[in-house]
Amino acid sequence: MQGTAGPIDRAALERLDREDPLAHLREEFNLPEGVVYLDGNSLGPLPRRTPERLARMLQEEWGRDLIRGWTERGWLELPLALGDKLARIIGAPAGTVVVSDTTSINLFKLLTAALRLCPDRRTIITEACNFPTDVYIAEGLLDLLGGGRRLVRIEADEDPAEAVDDDTAVVMLTHVDYRSGRMHDMARITAAAQHRGALMLWDLAHSAGAVPLDLGGCNVDLAVGCGYKYLNGGPGAPAFLYVAERWQHELNQPLWGWLGHAEPFAFEPRYRPAAGIGRALCSSPPIAAMVALECGLDLMLQADPAELRRKSLALGDHFIALVEQECASAGLILFTPREHARRGSQVCFRHPAARPVMQALIAREVIGDFREPDVLRFGLCPLYLRYTDLWDAVAVLREVLPAREVRP
Amino acid sequence: MQGTAGPIDRAALERLDREDPLAHLREEFNLPEGVVYLDGNSLGPLPRRTPERLARMLQEEWGRDLIRGWTERGWLELPLALGDKLARIIGAPAGTVVVSDTTSINLFKLLTAALRLCPDRRTIITEACNFPTDVYIAEGLLDLLGGGRRLVRIEADEDPAEAVDDDTAVVMLTHVDYRSGRMHDMARITAAAQHRGALMLWDLAHSAGAVPLDLGGCNVDLAVGCGYKYLNGGPGAPAFLYVAERWQHELNQPLWGWLGHAEPFAFEPRYRPAAGIGRALCSSPPIAAMVALECGLDLMLQADPAELRRKSLALGDHFIALVEQECASAGLILFTPREHARRGSQVCFRHPAARPVMQALIAREVIGDFREPDVLRFGLCPLYLRYTDLWDAVAVLREVLPAREVRP
Repeated sequence: MQGTAGPIDRAALERLDREDPLAHLREEFNLPEGVVYLDGNSLGPLPRRTPERLARMLQEEWGRDLIRGWTERGWLELPLALGDKLARIIGAPAGTVVVSDTTSINLFKLLTAALRLCPDRRTIITEACNFPTDVYIAEGLLDLLGGGRRLVRIEADEDPAEAVDDDTAVVMLTHVDYRSGRMHDMARITAAAQHRGALMLWDLAHSAGAVPLDLGGCNVDLAVGCGYKYLNGGPGAPAFLYVAERWQHELNQPLWGWLGHAEPFAFEPRYRPAAGIGRALCSSPPIAAMVALECGLDLMLQADPAELRRKSLALGDHFIALVEQECASAGLILFTPREHARRGSQVCFRHPAARPVMQALIAREVIGDFREPDVLRFGLCPLYLRYTDLWDAVAVLREVLPAREVRP
Repeated sequence: MQGTAGPIDRAALERLDREDPLAHLREEFNLPEGVVYLDGNSLGPLPRRTPERLARMLQEEWGRDLIRGWTERGWLELPLALGDKLARIIGAPAGTVVVSDTTSINLFKLLTAALRLCPDRRTIITEACNFPTDVYIAEGLLDLLGGGRRLVRIEADEDPAEAVDDDTAVVMLTHVDYRSGRMHDMARITAAAQHRGALMLWDLAHSAGAVPLDLGGCNVDLAVGCGYKYLNGGPGAPAFLYVAERWQHELNQPLWGWLGHAEPFAFEPRYRPAAGIGRALCSSPPIAAMVALECGLDLMLQADPAELRRKSLALGDHFIALVEQECASAGLILFTPREHARRGSQVCFRHPAARPVMQALIAREVIGDFREPDVLRFGLCPLYLRYTDLWDAVAVLREVLPAREVRP
């Protein structure tokens, strides 16, 4: 879209849909008729195969095999097996990812471990605009540990790499900002933080399944992420964490649950962590939720990541162009970077009436979301969105935007 | 059964089944034909209504309402709503229980909070025979906090109340022992610990849904428990925690996730805990798993707790009597207290060949479990077990027990 001139019409978007090599994947989702769903970055939609797979797990596995499911149906292996599938999605080697617990809890584990890996350094750097739970978890950990450790919150226009100093233990950033959709340069910031002796921890909540990732190539130390957004694992789906192989044998995460033990079923009196990434586990995995997430991961793995990125950016470019074409005088201010290298898979606008505008959109079945104080957020998921959906969404947006005095 | 003389025959057990006021509840479970399931204390069986309820949640809630499910389908309220249902099962007031995370993680939250409530005391008392994950979680927390704090492990024949001294911050006990099935006197030990200035934290993993509980009447401070055993919530179901109302406003649990915030959707820059039990939450609840657990809770709430206890003890008495009658010379040693007041809802025997004996039982579809080093464990769940199941189980047990030399 960049460089294309002239107004966009619906026919052009229909042509893009016909030529879309990912178009068939929409059939893999149960999307309600008449809804334009632009909120897959809050909760991905239901994959078509999930209900059938979950019904089978209930009746044939839990119902029939009962307790034997843990060993005979591979339930116990799901955290690592799904971790290996996730590793392919985020460009990490096998054996570096587990699916477990929640993003917040995984962050608590890894932040604690990071502080222990850098015992002579006392600060955690993050962004003031980071998703609240990330900041709260860091605050809670520092409140627990004391010892002069502190959280440094930089502003969105500061370069995180510049903030790192000799006292920085870990830089904790969300790769794609949940409000603006701005994407950080993972390779550059990781290298810069490490160059100054800090560890790099990325939150991939708005990246995994949304943009191509190469955690291995970027030499990332630690990461966490979410299963219910672009990975379509269902509401409250299990989360994941990544630990580079080089840190695994030193990793001391504080939740010493039995599933992280070297031999959980030996029932030894003392905790002895598992050898590899398994030590990041704590408790028995939630099997129904794991099976639902696996359906989402399998779907994601069907698509070529480069094709997904190409379509995601094209959806974004067209959405921006359409809003600017159709709602030019409505007072919307683009909040998301236009530049491809700095954009995730969402497009946001600021508007003084963002809250009622989003309520009106949702009432008309165009589902995005509102974020404080004035942000209209639209998630653009290339697995199931059509280019013509953008036309339909913008048509409704134009109608619901309040009339605005045009100053002469 | 106590006091009944003479051998038991199958006809007597058939009569008990016919007269069982809880017999109809067996129909509420999908139990596989031909299986005698004596492992509901590891994983409860599938309630008949769970698959249909879960299918509805997937198609009608997630599939159709998408992100709106969080508000319009009450998903966000499930941790507290299910907590209130659980409160009725464990004899606690409404507003003192949440369903969340896992037993281990909930234990980490409450142990940390307990140590903070008693800052001048440095020890946690537990039993050496406690379930490993409870001990590991305490070890992990003390490893994190340091400061001379330590874990005191008493032996199973010691009175926990006697071990409490001026340095005890919290006594952490599992109410019904996972191996022996021995039940502690909750009222007496709680009062004694509190009398000496310590807090009392009970793990109800083998009690909730298994024995009548009165956390309110026993003035318990803190408790955790498990959703996938007697509560039939499914493999890896969400767990729960209880905090007495008097401690809630001081409770500082260390996992400061956004769902525990006073206003999660205000996205405030600083953590500010919710006013009541909600501050014990951390992350978005796993909806499929919550809905499955709710089916188990609803089922449990259909039964009169006094009737459940009466049947549970009668099942245990008959099982012990049958084993002693049918396998008298096989070298089985009863590991579970005979005394009703000291017994949970399971019966265990020690035997030198316990491991292969349990394997042989399971191969014959009598499913109990083996626990190190020599324990045959049989869970007796009054919701779905028949008295005649005991007969069938013991008949198989007699056949699979190794022939034993009888010394003259």
